[in-house]
Amino acid sequence: MRYTFLGPVGTFTEAALLTVPGAREAERIPVSSVPAALDALRSGRADAAMVPIENSVEGGVTATLDAIAALDGSFRIVREVLVPITFVLVADPGTTLADVQTISTHTHAWAQVRNWVAQNKPEAGYLPGSSTAGAALGLLQQNCGYDAAICSPALAEAHPELKVLAHNIGDNKRAVTRFVLVARDAVTPEPTGADKTTLVIPLPQDRPGALLDLLEQFSTRGINLSRIESRPTGEFLGAYFFSIDIDGHLYDARVRDALRGLHRVAPGVLFLGSYPRADQRVARVDPVHDESSFDAARSWVESLFPGGRPDSLKHHI
Amino acid sequence: MRYTFLGPVGTFTEAALLTVPGAREAERIPVSSVPAALDALRSGRADAAMVPIENSVEGGVTATLDAIAALDGSFRIVREVLVPITFVLVADPGTTLADVQTISTHTHAWAQVRNWVAQNKPEAGYLPGSSTAGAALGLLQQNCGYDAAICSPALAEAHPELKVLAHNIGDNKRAVTRFVLVARDAVTPEPTGADKTTLVIPLPQDRPGALLDLLEQFSTRGINLSRIESRPTGEFLGAYFFSIDIDGHLYDARVRDALRGLHRVAPGVLFLGSYPRADQRVARVDPVHDESSFDAARSWVESLFPGGRPDSLKHHI
Amino acid sequence: MRYTFLGPVGTFTEAALLTVPGAREAERIPVSSVPAALDALRSGRADAAMVPIENSVEGGVTATLDAIAALDGSFRIVREVLVPITFVLVADPGTTLADVQTISTHTHAWAQVRNWVAQNKPEAGYLPGSSTAGAALGLLQQNCGYDAAICSPALAEAHPELKVLAHNIGDNKRAVTRFVLVARDAVTPEPTGADKTTLVIPLPQDRPGALLDLLEQFSTRGINLSRIESRPTGEFLGAYFFSIDIDGHLYDARVRDALRGLHRVAPGVLFLGSYPRADQRVARVDPVHDESSFDAARSWVESLFPGGRPDSLKHHI
Amino acid sequence: MRYTFLGPVGTFTEAALLTVPGAREAERIPVSSVPAALDALRSGRADAAMVPIENSVEGGVTATLDAIAALDGSFRIVREVLVPITFVLVADPGTTLADVQTISTHTHAWAQVRNWVAQNKPEAGYLPGSSTAGAALGLLQQNCGYDAAICSPALAEAHPELKVLAHNIGDNKRAVTRFVLVARDAVTPEPTGADKTTLVIPLPQDRPGALLDLLEQFSTRGINLSRIESRPTGEFLGAYFFSIDIDGHLYDARVRDALRGLHRVAPGVLFLGSYPRADQRVARVDPVHDESSFDAARSWVESLFPGGRPDSLKHHI
Repeated sequence: MRYTFLGPVGTFTEAALLTVPGAREAERIPVSSVPAALDALRSGRADAAMVPIENSVEGGVTATLDAIAALDGSFRIVREVLVPITFVLVADPGTTLADVQTISTHTHAWAQVRNWVAQNKPEAGYLPGSSTAGAALGLLQQNCGYDAAICSPALAEAHPELKVLAHNIGDNKRAVTRFVLVARDAVTPEPTGADKTTLVIPLPQDRPGALLDLLEQFSTRGINLSRIESRPTGEFLGAYFFSIDIDGHLYDARVRDALRGLHRVAPGVLFLGSYPRADQRVARVDPVHDESSFDAARSWVESLFPGGRPDSLKHHI
Repeated sequence: MRYTFLGPVGTFTEAALLTVPGAREAERIPVSSVPAALDALRSGRADAAMVPIENSVEGGVTATLDAIAALDGSFRIVREVLVPITFVLVADPGTTLADVQTISTHTHAWAQVRNWVAQNKPEAGYLPGSSTAGAALGLLQQNCGYDAAICSPALAEAHPELKVLAHNIGDNKRAVTRFVLVARDAVTPEPTGADKTTLVIPLPQDRPGALLDLLEQFSTRGINLSRIESRPTGEFLGAYFFSIDIDGHLYDARVRDALRGLHRVAPGVLFLGSYPRADQRVARVDPVHDESSFDAARSWVESLFPGGRPDSLKHHI
Repeated sequence: MRYTFLGPVGTFTEAALLTVPGAREAERIPVSSVPAALDALRSGRADAAMVPIENSVEGGVTATLDAIAALDGSFRIVREVLVPITFVLVADPGTTLADVQTISTHTHAWAQVRNWVAQNKPEAGYLPGSSTAGAALGLLQQNCGYDAAICSPALAEAHPELKVLAHNIGDNKRAVTRFVLVARDAVTPEPTGADKTTLVIPLPQDRPGALLDLLEQFSTRGINLSRIESRPTGEFLGAYFFSIDIDGHLYDARVRDALRGLHRVAPGVLFLGSYPRADQRVARVDPVHDESSFDAARSWVESLFPGGRPDSLKHHI
Repeated sequence: MRYTFLGPVGTFTEAALLTVPGAREAERIPVSSVPAALDALRSGRADAAMVPIENSVEGGVTATLDAIAALDGSFRIVREVLVPITFVLVADPGTTLADVQTISTHTHAWAQVRNWVAQNKPEAGYLPGSSTAGAALGLLQQNCGYDAAICSPALAEAHPELKVLAHNIGDNKRAVTRFVLVARDAVTPEPTGADKTTLVIPLPQDRPGALLDLLEQFSTRGINLSRIESRPTGEFLGAYFFSIDIDGHLYDARVRDALRGLHRVAPGVLFLGSYPRADQRVARVDPVHDESSFDAARSWVESLFPGGRPDSLKHHI
């Protein structure tokens, strides 16, 4: 297996990738953006890509949401990984906290240390960086234009030539980022009982209740939504698609039944995969929506054709 | 074929039966009640039974609704017949309208001539009869206890020994009664595009929204209800079953899909048959709910198992 | 107060009336039909009318449902009464059970003793009577045409000249009939916390989801339906109104809010009264739907007009 | 009036502000972030703030969504402005397109010229800038670290010392950004018939159907949603609030009624203002949901208290 990920080495994304069994020994190709990671999949240079999809503080990663919404049906999310997000402030060994005048990091990271900066370095300037790791490693170069960077503790540990000026500076100590592993031509992982399914659903029309019709497909089968994001299709203001995670697996009858209903009201729906939940939380399913209820309903309807189904209608049933 | 019907000869039910192709030449067994008609089916003495199910003025025929709700799955409604309801007042040849003091007829018929009686014979007494035909024929016997009866024009024509005192005395000139033909071990009639399906649905629980959950199974598939009646199960006040007619046929994908959903939320649902509408009115189906939409949805979900379905799960899918 | 009721003396309806405080001492006017009872109210001959509305075995009393649906807004249901229904078989003192050949009673009563008759007098003939009491008292006249009658134990007790041949012959030992007391120009009874409200709702259109729209007005406010009956308007097959009882009182905010929503989707809705439940069962109300939730919602929306509402819009708010 | 806006001078936000009548003559205070603009409002240094809220290509502006969700009830959106987004590539007068090696601009802008860059300067590096205007003006300073910038045509026109290397380089020629003007202690603008209302709604619970309950408050009153965004509350993955725009005005009865329903199921709802739609598109309102329907419903329910409302209940009604 060859993996690609949102690099460089030392990002939180690499930390997520390293939790995948076998990834530590496998080839790992850092790239500079989510679209580049998916391109590597398409071209065959990699077999799977680890990308961030949402952060508990900053919300959906829009670059990822848009990029995976454009995938064709040969790609699947096969795994999710949750990584607690903690930040350190690093600088040249000769720099003290008092010396710091300009700080660089990724804008998502900057947003998550706002309070710490306001209290400890309110006068510091900010220079956006393309990633947390990129900003930190930039310090090792001449004339980088800033004198401190915010990055992951892992990167700081891997680079003893950087000095940690402050530990654990994130405003929300329970911040977590969720990553997904996207693979090409992958087999859907077996259900574990604690699974998630990711869908992309273009909203069919701009009319009262269109979103409601979609959501009813889930609620009438007792399926919980664990994430919902609207994203513009880019055509005009108000043209959306929805990126949705639901509890349950493609092999659960209630999920398949909901997908059929969904396809009718939104034929452009895209299935992005069913995979185990990282938190292993088992969904509570009302007996009305469990496998045996669907099996019994199916058998009952079949029993209404006592002499066998008419041949001409066989394909309908 | 041997037919049974709610008799005696000359009732509106017989008129309904005579519209069935072949019934005029077949054996026809009049019985005195709807349960008796269905008993004749169960015992094998008859192959099909014609019974009234609802009247446009008086509503559902409760004896029929309760009796067919108790049928097992080997019985099917295979046809419906609409009969316009008109009434005549008949008496002994020697009686004039002015002489009439007491009138007998079936209570349903009596309810439908209330205004005529109030205007023309406000002082007349009323004696309930077991059927309109029975009341009329009773006049031919000594000491029947009444001197006029209300019955169908057909019966009056068949019995010239009865004199018609007043024609077309029904209060509602467009009154119509709907009859259904119940058969045992019958093949479901082929769909015509203008079909109806009759169901009996025990309400699962006495909680806010239980009925709503049932109705959503139809509305989310664009299925119209043409009749809904609640009937007590007899156990306690507030314990109901629903007798429902929907537009559409068992062989329509949207109907089968609704039946599956219905069985999950109300496992006691009883399917009483799909059959052509007497008025031949074709149901308008939104493209979202038509056969091709269901076929496409089904094919799409199947396509999500590219390497074939795992054997262990085959029965689920 | 002058009361009218579905007579004659000795009916279950009179038994219901006698449970009303003061009714035993008041003038009580028996009439022969539900419409006649309501006519007595309209003409001012009586102040309140006791009529049966549903039976746990036989279902809704259609004559009552239709008659109260035609009332105008000056009438109100102010009380409900539940009467356990038990039957006795009575005859002339000289008659034994073995002698009985023909039995008379009201058709509703006959339906409720079917099993007892099948087991004990399977050969007996049946003659419909206009009421249970009427059938029993008919035995005291010459040439009534039958030799036994089925009536209430109370009537048998009041007429020692009738002999009871069999006690407690109802098929369902827990059968109960519900009666309502209809008054003119009445004050709505104060809420007790265990109340019921009766509505008549013409279904606005014959389209998928019309009934659903009505029911959602209740379910979105957490209001349970304790009774729902569809009745034909009489115009054509499929034209219905619904007779509905809901849990709650006009003075409950959730009920008033539901009534406002209902009036919008079904402007023909008729309010027939709020009154204490006979069984005194208190409705469980989710905090989302209780008074304080409605009060808080109302206050919040009012607070959005900080400088007071513009005069020109005052009537809207 | 003193206005603040996301600066510096020359941003699209300033272009939006300049469309406000009177703004061209008023004091205009550029600030470096959306939170800084709202702080200027809170502290009283400005009376109104123009901020971007969504872009037809890039979606919601999360910094704005989060900042306005944290406002208290004394702030209101009073106006929206749509600005077509077009981009130019600018550089030092001595630089040609062929010379360009590194480009700077705001990340949102960079995302919108991706295709143009891929085709015309695929080898160019990217350096994130804090705003489009800031990146362009940076070129006028020594050692800025890049040799071209992407900004608005307006800024290029205002600075003839910058040379335009390429015009209209946006990938989507119909791209538009929507801005809102937030004011403190403002009067709600009068309804125009083509209005929008912005709400922030914390999702009450993580259960099947919670979002559905919210949306039903709109759909049952025929209210269309023109925008819906979910944003994390920051507490944990899966804890959301929704930022929603609906068609209609606080002074429309259907909107007030929906707000009341919404407050009951989500008491934390925040009203951010009703204001004219920039596109002046009038919402089509079904008669069931128009003012007269709400007025009639309200009057009907009031009429059910014929003798006047009991004093003790007055506050409920």
